[in-house]
Amino acid sequence: MSNGGAPFCAAADWGTSSFRLWLLAGDGTVLGEKRSREGMQSAVAAGGFSAVLETHLASLGAPVDLPVIVCGMAGARQGWVEVPYADAPAALAEIAGKATPVPGLARDVRILPGVAQRDAARPDVMRGEETQVMGLGRDGLICLPGTHSKWVSVADGRIEAFSTFMTGEIFALLAGQSILRHTVGENHDALAHRDAFTEAVEASARQPEALLNRLFSLRAGGLLGTAASEEAAARLSGYLIGSEIAGARAALPESRSVILAASGPLADLYAVALAAGGFTVETADADTAVREGLLAAAHQCFGMPT
Amino acid sequence: MSNGGAPFCAAADWGTSSFRLWLLAGDGTVLGEKRSREGMQSAVAAGGFSAVLETHLASLGAPVDLPVIVCGMAGARQGWVEVPYADAPAALAEIAGKATPVPGLARDVRILPGVAQRDAARPDVMRGEETQVMGLGRDGLICLPGTHSKWVSVADGRIEAFSTFMTGEIFALLAGQSILRHTVGENHDALAHRDAFTEAVEASARQPEALLNRLFSLRAGGLLGTAASEEAAARLSGYLIGSEIAGARAALPESRSVILAASGPLADLYAVALAAGGFTVETADADTAVREGLLAAAHQCFGMPT
Repeated sequence: MSNGGAPFCAAADWGTSSFRLWLLAGDGTVLGEKRSREGMQSAVAAGGFSAVLETHLASLGAPVDLPVIVCGMAGARQGWVEVPYADAPAALAEIAGKATPVPGLARDVRILPGVAQRDAARPDVMRGEETQVMGLGRDGLICLPGTHSKWVSVADGRIEAFSTFMTGEIFALLAGQSILRHTVGENHDALAHRDAFTEAVEASARQPEALLNRLFSLRAGGLLGTAASEEAAARLSGYLIGSEIAGARAALPESRSVILAASGPLADLYAVALAAGGFTVETADADTAVREGLLAAAHQCFGMPT
Repeated sequence: MSNGGAPFCAAADWGTSSFRLWLLAGDGTVLGEKRSREGMQSAVAAGGFSAVLETHLASLGAPVDLPVIVCGMAGARQGWVEVPYADAPAALAEIAGKATPVPGLARDVRILPGVAQRDAARPDVMRGEETQVMGLGRDGLICLPGTHSKWVSVADGRIEAFSTFMTGEIFALLAGQSILRHTVGENHDALAHRDAFTEAVEASARQPEALLNRLFSLRAGGLLGTAASEEAAARLSGYLIGSEIAGARAALPESRSVILAASGPLADLYAVALAAGGFTVETADADTAVREGLLAAAHQCFGMPT
């Protein structure tokens, strides 16, 4: 670990619509970084994952024999190489042990598996979030908000159970394409109307059965002038996140204390929502977590640096 | 009422995307009928409600002085003439009493108001469904399924309270535009998978807090092969309708017996779902109901035929 300046590996978080790459020393020092919108979808369209990866590695001056560890949707069926899921309950070391080499490359590139919950009543999957969880290195209840929010229960270093909620995707569909688009307008900064947002979270977490009605009430309140229209987007967000919180509390009831792993605006939004939903919240940076998780997996896959 | 063959009025149900017109004798005998997709949106685009209406009246051979009663979105702000809502609780005769003449026409055309529930906690509106309720002429709990499903509580001939659920619109968005479109495919006949549908209704009505998670589980179940993919659309429909049923039971708890006013495939779908949700169901035809409601309103507006 003495040579913090020499690259030990590159690490990529390759999602559906985003790509992040770090050049890492063996002790985790970040020697270079790239971010782009060349996610799985555009990498496929652009003619190949390898070309996208090599271009960015070259721009960071990475040696041609530097190994690369990858997590995320690059390992999905429609991605680069399909990497079978590890099954929950899954120990974190076991996940890294299932990393799969990309065949036919000069460089050693390995893609981490996602995790599957093969429960007929509650089937669920993740790809990428398991690496964030590895990077946190913590037991407890973890909330990873996003297009598809994940709640993960970790005990003794194992992913025991998890639940995914379509919160973010449904918000985008309703705000952009439903009849509510007339009501919520273009400005979706829910925390600019914090009281309306927390009131909506609390109401929805308390009465989750009313969700489909509350959504229409945003439209009706706008027509009748009984609700301030600039608050409608905050309420829409609050109703959906409140429903998510009620669902997570029922599915993973063992804790009222949660580790929130997020970055950017979602981190602030969920910190407020989780507190309104009765949780004690501890925050962690999601970008740092995934980088730490990739580093830990790289140590297992490529050996500890000398 | 002796002359069943002479037209007493024309009656139109003018919705957002559909137009229905009947030529009616004073006793309700249907002397002619037209249906088209010239709803509010296309009537506005086509250059005017009056032109659309007169074209169809002429094709039915309606006299130039025949009065016309109209319900639905033609009375909305973005419609033909904005007709202010009647406020709930609203007696049905009072709704007809607020019908508003369209100014500047040779013909007597009157548009019925919708009904507003000016409750800050549960604001709601309807336009058109109040006329179906008038046509049913029944006290009780009434379910009017659709893009925006309405549940209406009627007592002593008054609309006391109601709740609208965005069930149908959200189904269409999720099945057509979300990540679930890959899972549910093109065939959305839920009753072809009746067991899966009723199981989903029951599960969602019992645990409505799990809705946003159950939606994702459709995707995960498809990826993991734990759920038959041809059942996914039935489950999606069942999860949403089950949530609606749970919400309606909580909002309007006075009855476990419901009058289902629907037409076409939705009538069968909701009959099965409501039974699975613990309701005793009595069915009524929605088309007949709105026509009867329009006739009753026309009698009040234009006088009883001699």
